[in-house]
Amino acid sequence: MASRIAQWTLDVHDVNRMARFWSEVLGYRIEPRNDGSAKLWPPDGAPGIAPTVWLQPTTADKTGKNRIHIDLGTDAGDPVGEVDRLIALGARRVDVGQRGTEPFVVLADPEGNEFCLLDRPPRNA
Amino acid sequence: MASRIAQWTLDVHDVNRMARFWSEVLGYRIEPRNDGSAKLWPPDGAPGIAPTVWLQPTTADKTGKNRIHIDLGTDAGDPVGEVDRLIALGARRVDVGQRGTEPFVVLADPEGNEFCLLDRPPRNA
Repeated sequence: MASRIAQWTLDVHDVNRMARFWSEVLGYRIEPRNDGSAKLWPPDGAPGIAPTVWLQPTTADKTGKNRIHIDLGTDAGDPVGEVDRLIALGARRVDVGQRGTEPFVVLADPEGNEFCLLDRPPRNA
Repeated sequence: MASRIAQWTLDVHDVNRMARFWSEVLGYRIEPRNDGSAKLWPPDGAPGIAPTVWLQPTTADKTGKNRIHIDLGTDAGDPVGEVDRLIALGARRVDVGQRGTEPFVVLADPEGNEFCLLDRPPRNA
């Protein structure tokens, strides 16, 4: 028996703004919830194991670099174009001490949560 | 064009200990890296989009609840048994203000990073 990564959860200040951003980044559908949170669902046809995203409201402020982040990959084979697209959506480049030669670009979402865009998504076996 | 969630990255104090824990939780294979980090790979036969895990060493201490966490799901249909298994591996129950009636159990890994086990993994349409 093993568990699988089923969902990625963020505590956010502005659920609507963050839902819009992440839904556009991932191509996910927004489901607003009655409790003020939002669930983001993979597009129809995505494999059943594609993780959902859950944005829950918090009043706590972000302090320091997040200990956990996600890395994105694009299968379109154009990571440079994808960085431009992410920045147009509201992401920005951030410095977390990287040298600039790593095989990824470090970005932050509109609330400053760090994430990376990998030059190439990891390929299982 | 859209990106997908390709990897889940944690900053950790003890890469070996955390690699063992998370590899057993997820059934992933450990690849130690020369830079002191470890990459965890989904089992052979997992769908190509199953996210990898990357554990990178840090000296920074965890402060407060992580702003980002993952939620696990088990397809075996026995979340109670899975909680027992996770605790035997080194997880512990934590209180982040939950009422106890939520459809998930809140746990922390050996370095205190919060994660949840969902009663049922989300089902895409």
